[in-house]
Amino acid sequence: MIRLLYLLVKPHDMSQETFRAECLRHYEMSHDVPGLHKYEVRLVVQQPTDTHVPYFDIGQVDAIGECWFENDAAYDTYMASDVRRTWFEHGKTFIGQLKPFRTETVGGDNKVA
Amino acid sequence: MIRLLYLLVKPHDMSQETFRAECLRHYEMSHDVPGLHKYEVRLVVQQPTDTHVPYFDIGQVDAIGECWFENDAAYDTYMASDVRRTWFEHGKTFIGQLKPFRTETVGGDNKVA
Repeated sequence: MIRLLYLLVKPHDMSQETFRAECLRHYEMSHDVPGLHKYEVRLVVQQPTDTHVPYFDIGQVDAIGECWFENDAAYDTYMASDVRRTWFEHGKTFIGQLKPFRTETVGGDNKVA
Repeated sequence: MIRLLYLLVKPHDMSQETFRAECLRHYEMSHDVPGLHKYEVRLVVQQPTDTHVPYFDIGQVDAIGECWFENDAAYDTYMASDVRRTWFEHGKTFIGQLKPFRTETVGGDNKVA
């Protein structure tokens, strides 16, 4: 399973309510995207700073998204898809800044709920 | 379900191999922590910068951890636990910097695989 995680920062001039609604809309649109096994989006509701190791201060983050793909072929299908392109265009309307990570699970499993 | 996600930065002087081994050890230790429903840790293997919206540059991140708790009572049990304290002490030995997020799912579900 290929997993990509994203930190999302909302545009400065967008309300929290609009951002939440657009996140939900982005989730609903994800169901039609070829090659995408699962998409999840979560709002950040707390950013605790009282960590037991030194705090990594990266500023405000508003949401966390995640994409699952079954394999490279599915990812290629996704990237080649016009539906995916339209989905990305929607992303441009409500994502101010984006930080992607491709990850490899070392503890836990790669199964999807 | 309460979900906490963490960005982990390894200490500057720690090798990738040692960091990976300590992440796996941290995962194994998690099974004994009271109140903790699930723990997962993943290495960051790629950090693409060619985003379709402005790139959010936060520097190097080495791993992403996540904790699941069934409810507030389970979280309180976790926080009060000496086993949890020992687990955090292990965290101090291999986590250079840490950024926590508490999240609320808006698209997707809160079930655990």
